Amino acid sequence: MHPAVAPLAFLLGTWRGEGRRDYPTIEPFAYQEETVFAHVGKPFFSYAQRTRAVPDEAPLHGETGYLRPTSGGALELVIAHPTGILELDLGHVDGTTLALRSDRVLCTPTAKEVVELRYVLDMAAVGQPLTFHLEATLRRVRA
Amino acid sequence: MHPAVAPLAFLLGTWRGEGRRDYPTIEPFAYQEETVFAHVGKPFFSYAQRTRAVPDEAPLHGETGYLRPTSGGALELVIAHPTGILELDLGHVDGTTLALRSDRVLCTPTAKEVVELRYVLDMAAVGQPLTFHLEATLRRVRA
Repeated sequence: MHPAVAPLAFLLGTWRGEGRRDYPTIEPFAYQEETVFAHVGKPFFSYAQRTRAVPDEAPLHGETGYLRPTSGGALELVIAHPTGILELDLGHVDGTTLALRSDRVLCTPTAKEVVELRYVLDMAAVGQPLTFHLEATLRRVRA
Repeated sequence: MHPAVAPLAFLLGTWRGEGRRDYPTIEPFAYQEETVFAHVGKPFFSYAQRTRAVPDEAPLHGETGYLRPTSGGALELVIAHPTGILELDLGHVDGTTLALRSDRVLCTPTAKEVVELRYVLDMAAVGQPLTFHLEATLRRVRA
């Protein structure tokens, strides 16, 4: 493993779980999620996420990109979405806590306009209390 | 397969081959490339590309994203690069010819500045003359 990504080694591997989706315009539903962080010996991790419906496993969302530690715990995350959105997040890692904030977003001409999107993610691993925290806020950016 | 991506079905699958890299500041070398187009039944293809050195197979470049046909043969391509670059290309498909041009590029603060990048790709498939053509020009965009 490249030493630049060693502080993020706790992320490596395949994470699976179940989520819940809701919004005023839709019926709430459950989904399965799989998130994979991998590396090839270079100073970045690849990142891929997929969600599937419960129970029929129909594909829902996916996204793919790269997580780049820079210096002093700083992080850069670049993600492509099949919805036609490109997301550039900046933040930092402190222990097993990642804090990321959307810096810029590009949308293709036909991407659905998203005014603001924010998520918070907490996870507990075997032998560890709830320490992992991932948070991002996306603001609308004109295409 | 979603009917929106049917005109791009000829791209589906795993493509492998060998390339050659050169630049005034480097020694020329050969590389292996693998490009995968896949779908999950939705109106887009996932796209992933990886290159490895010859002969030691050390990982070189990779990129990942989504190809979205819209209407009338129009195409949108969103790609994340591990170098910290996000690329939004627009273009169209005409038969088995794809023409794409970089529309906008986002760079993270530590991404190396690229002034201009252009590539042209021709391919011949079994039973077909050299008909596939992929071309893109990236211009420098300030971070």
